Amino acid sequence: MKNGMELALCEARNAAERGEVPVGAVVLGPDGTVLAQGGNRVEELQDPSAHAEMLVMREALAVRGGQRLADCTLVVTLEPCPMCAAALAHFRVGRVLFGAYDPKGGGVEHGPRLPFRAEALHRPEIIGGVREQEAAGLLKTFFQSLRTREEAENPHP
Amino acid sequence: MKNGMELALCEARNAAERGEVPVGAVVLGPDGTVLAQGGNRVEELQDPSAHAEMLVMREALAVRGGQRLADCTLVVTLEPCPMCAAALAHFRVGRVLFGAYDPKGGGVEHGPRLPFRAEALHRPEIIGGVREQEAAGLLKTFFQSLRTREEAENPHP
Repeated sequence: MKNGMELALCEARNAAERGEVPVGAVVLGPDGTVLAQGGNRVEELQDPSAHAEMLVMREALAVRGGQRLADCTLVVTLEPCPMCAAALAHFRVGRVLFGAYDPKGGGVEHGPRLPFRAEALHRPEIIGGVREQEAAGLLKTFFQSLRTREEAENPHP
Repeated sequence: MKNGMELALCEARNAAERGEVPVGAVVLGPDGTVLAQGGNRVEELQDPSAHAEMLVMREALAVRGGQRLADCTLVVTLEPCPMCAAALAHFRVGRVLFGAYDPKGGGVEHGPRLPFRAEALHRPEIIGGVREQEAAGLLKTFFQSLRTREEAENPHP
């Protein structure tokens, strides 16, 4: 069986093929069962909140019922942004494994570091940097090819 | 025509009748047209992220197309939580009017104060305390009646 990060990376690659920023996520139940897996769908759904984490957390609850993921692990290829980092507390996610660190847009280990704030309602166990190179590599390749395409379409004289 | 906060308060009352924490929200277009209105549906959808703000921002884009609400106003009866405060930036909301302040759970004027952080991608114009007493009153009444019901169901000896 593929592990969670392997699946999340696969979902990130699928997202890139759909023209989405390549971020993928998986929710694993307490026994390691995959409850939900998916990628970023911001462009497809024309919904700026359709980050991979939001989609899979919602789907995992739809599968299981209830309103908490306290015995679950969210695996995601990129450090969650502040929106998703705050949602982790609403969903009471037990554990978060993420791939690449995001110094500019992250909200877990960077920026507001929401789970570590005194007023945080809930703090998941957090492990960052899992298969960091691969996760970061996907994003780097995606944005490089985006820039190349933009430069080809808008050449400077 | 009712103004935005009047409609948002109405949606908050509807939410309370559905057994939801009474928070209501409205998105107004540049000419004041109501693009979306709704209340909290966390219980109904069994989705901890189904805050009024998230639902109406998504609905407003579904109505209009595109991925930005830069020329729109989000009106909400309670100061947005950190998740919704961060989502304001993803949706590029132009202006936010909110009712009651939320010193414990708010993320705009309290807690991480996300729109005011140096790394924030976007900062909407923010006006808090609009019809504050009414908005706060709805929440107070709701939580009091919840406590009364819980005490009746679980009487202390």
